[in-house]
Amino acid sequence: MGRLPQTPKPVDEFDSIARLFRPLTEGAPEALGLMDDAAVLASRPGHDLVITTDVMVEGVHFLPEDPLDLVARKLLRVNLSDLAAKAAEPFAYLLNAAWPARCGWPEREAFARGLAEDQRAFGIRLLGGDTSSTPGPLTVSVTALGWTPAGAMVKRSGARPGDVLLVSGSIGDGLLGLKAARGEITGLSADKADWLAARYRLPSPRVELRGALRAHATAAADVSDGLMADAGHIGEASGVAISLDLDLMPLSDPAKAWLAFQPDRAAALAELAAGGDDYEIVCAARPEAVAPLAAAARAAGLAVTPVGKVEAGEGLRVSRGGRPVEPARTGWRHG
Amino acid sequence: MGRLPQTPKPVDEFDSIARLFRPLTEGAPEALGLMDDAAVLASRPGHDLVITTDVMVEGVHFLPEDPLDLVARKLLRVNLSDLAAKAAEPFAYLLNAAWPARCGWPEREAFARGLAEDQRAFGIRLLGGDTSSTPGPLTVSVTALGWTPAGAMVKRSGARPGDVLLVSGSIGDGLLGLKAARGEITGLSADKADWLAARYRLPSPRVELRGALRAHATAAADVSDGLMADAGHIGEASGVAISLDLDLMPLSDPAKAWLAFQPDRAAALAELAAGGDDYEIVCAARPEAVAPLAAAARAAGLAVTPVGKVEAGEGLRVSRGGRPVEPARTGWRHG
Repeated sequence: MGRLPQTPKPVDEFDSIARLFRPLTEGAPEALGLMDDAAVLASRPGHDLVITTDVMVEGVHFLPEDPLDLVARKLLRVNLSDLAAKAAEPFAYLLNAAWPARCGWPEREAFARGLAEDQRAFGIRLLGGDTSSTPGPLTVSVTALGWTPAGAMVKRSGARPGDVLLVSGSIGDGLLGLKAARGEITGLSADKADWLAARYRLPSPRVELRGALRAHATAAADVSDGLMADAGHIGEASGVAISLDLDLMPLSDPAKAWLAFQPDRAAALAELAAGGDDYEIVCAARPEAVAPLAAAARAAGLAVTPVGKVEAGEGLRVSRGGRPVEPARTGWRHG
Repeated sequence: MGRLPQTPKPVDEFDSIARLFRPLTEGAPEALGLMDDAAVLASRPGHDLVITTDVMVEGVHFLPEDPLDLVARKLLRVNLSDLAAKAAEPFAYLLNAAWPARCGWPEREAFARGLAEDQRAFGIRLLGGDTSSTPGPLTVSVTALGWTPAGAMVKRSGARPGDVLLVSGSIGDGLLGLKAARGEITGLSADKADWLAARYRLPSPRVELRGALRAHATAAADVSDGLMADAGHIGEASGVAISLDLDLMPLSDPAKAWLAFQPDRAAALAELAAGGDDYEIVCAARPEAVAPLAAAARAAGLAVTPVGKVEAGEGLRVSRGGRPVEPARTGWRHG
C-alpha cells in the first residue's frame, strides 16, 4: 500500500521481509514464501479451523524497555493461549507490525529471533503478514490458526449448572509479575521477584492441556483478563452463574510469599483474581469428569485445581471458604 | 490481556464490542457472537481458504482528518483487493484496532458504520478481533478470508514467457488522489480533483474479476505498491522478466487532464506507474486468453488493458512505444 511521503523509513520493508521474515515460513508451503498477496490453506476434511487474534501496543501491553525477542514470544504466546483454551492444535500465524523509527535492523532482528524460537517450541510457522512504519509506539498483532477435530472445539458457552470450575497452574503471577517488572513489589527475595517478572514477560500457554480439555471439559477460556473476568465470560456465554472461592485459588510460592505480607488477605486474594496476564486455562467440567481431567492434565505435566462451581442464574459470586465476599471488595465489575 | 495502569480508557472496550461490533457478526455463526476466545470455521471440502492481512496507520496510510467510516471501508477494501487478485470469493474478516484517546464513542461508531456498509456491499461478516487503547496514532488491521475452489487460487508465480501483461481499470488515480486529498494538485477542475481524492480514499476492489481471472489468468497481483512494483512482484515470483509499456497504461479522464499539464510526459507517466493505492489488478495471460479474459471482464463491467509482456529473464523493463525508458527516470527500484 502506498505511504504518505513524510513517513520516515529507516529500514527497507522488502529487505526486512526477505531476510528476517521469509525464513520463518520454511516448511509452510501455504505461505508461498511471502511472495504473494495472500496465503492459501487447503481444506482439512474432518477438522475445524480455529482463528484468534491479539494486538499488543508498546506502553499498553508491554514496557518500552522490554527486549523485543520477548515481546515477539509473548505476542505468539497470548495467541497460543487462546488456541489452548479452545483445545486447538496450534498450526500457523499471520503477523502485522507497525514499526516506530526506534526499531531499526537490530530490533527487528531480535523480534524475528523471538518468533523463530517460539515457532520451534510450539511447532508453528509464519504464513503471511504486513509491516508498516508508524509515528507512534510499536504495535504488533498476530492472527493465530489452529485445528480441532470437527465439532470438538471447547467453547466458552458449554458450562452447565452442577459443573465444577477449575483452573490450571497458578493465578496472580501475571499481576505480581507486572508489579515486579515495574520494580513495584517489595518484601520478596530477588529470585522470587525475578521469577514473577519472567512469568509476566513470557507466559506459558497451556497447549499441552488440549487433550484433557477436549475429553473432559464442558467449557473453557484462557485467563488473560483475570480469573474473575474470564470465569465471568464463561458464565455469560453459557447463561449460568459462576461461584468462585478465592481460598481455593492455586498460588505459586512467590505469590504465597507476597500474600503473607499483605495486611488485608481478602483484598489481596481478590486483587490476584482480578489481575490479568496469567494465561492459565479456566474451565468447567461435570463432577464425574474432574478426576479424569486432573489425571489427564497431570499426565501432560500440569495441575488443575477446583476453584468454584457453575450454578443456575447469572453473574459472578465470589466467596472465601463458602462465605460471600462483598462485590465492592473484589474490584470486579460485570463485563 | 492486562493493561498497564497508566493507559487512558475513554471508552469501555466491552461496551464497544457488544454494541458496535457484535452486530457485525450477524449471520456468521463462526464468530460465536464475539463471546469466545476464537472463531471457528468448518472445513469446506473442495475449497481452499485464502488469507490476507493489511495494517493501516493514521498519518502513514490515511490522513488524521479522514472520516473514520471511510477509513474502515478502505481498510476492508485493501484486503478485499488482495482477495480479488487471488480470484477468491470474499467470505469474512477479523479486525484489530488500537484506539487513541481521540477516538471516543462517535468515532468508533463511524468506524463500525463504515464496516457495516461495506460488509453489505461485499457480502462479508466480522468473525473476531481485538481492540486496545494506544498512546499513538489509530492503528487498524484486518485479516480477510476468502474461498477458492481447491487449487484455483491465481498466484503471482504463474506467469510464463510469452504471456501478455494486463491491468484492470485505470492506473495512477491513487497517487493523484493522494495529491488531491492533500490539496497538492493544481490545474484540475474541482470535480476532477474530487473524483481523484475519492478514488484514493475509497478504492474499488475488483472482486467482480474473479471469474475472469480464474478462467484465463496465469498470474495476478493487486496494484497496491504501484504498477511497476506489483508487476515486478509477478516477475520475481514467476522467475521471469516483465516488460511494461508506459504509453499503453489506461488512464482515467482526470489523470489524462493532469498529464496534459506535465512538462515531462515520460517522467509523469513513470510517476503514475510508480504510485500506489490504485487497487486495480495486474495479471498475465496467454496471448490466446487475452480476448476471452477481456470479454469476461467486460461482462463483469470492467475493462482490462494490455500494458506489456512477460519475457524470459528477470527484472522490469520499462518502455514507451517499445523504446526503453532509462531505469533512473522511472524512479523504480528492484524490491
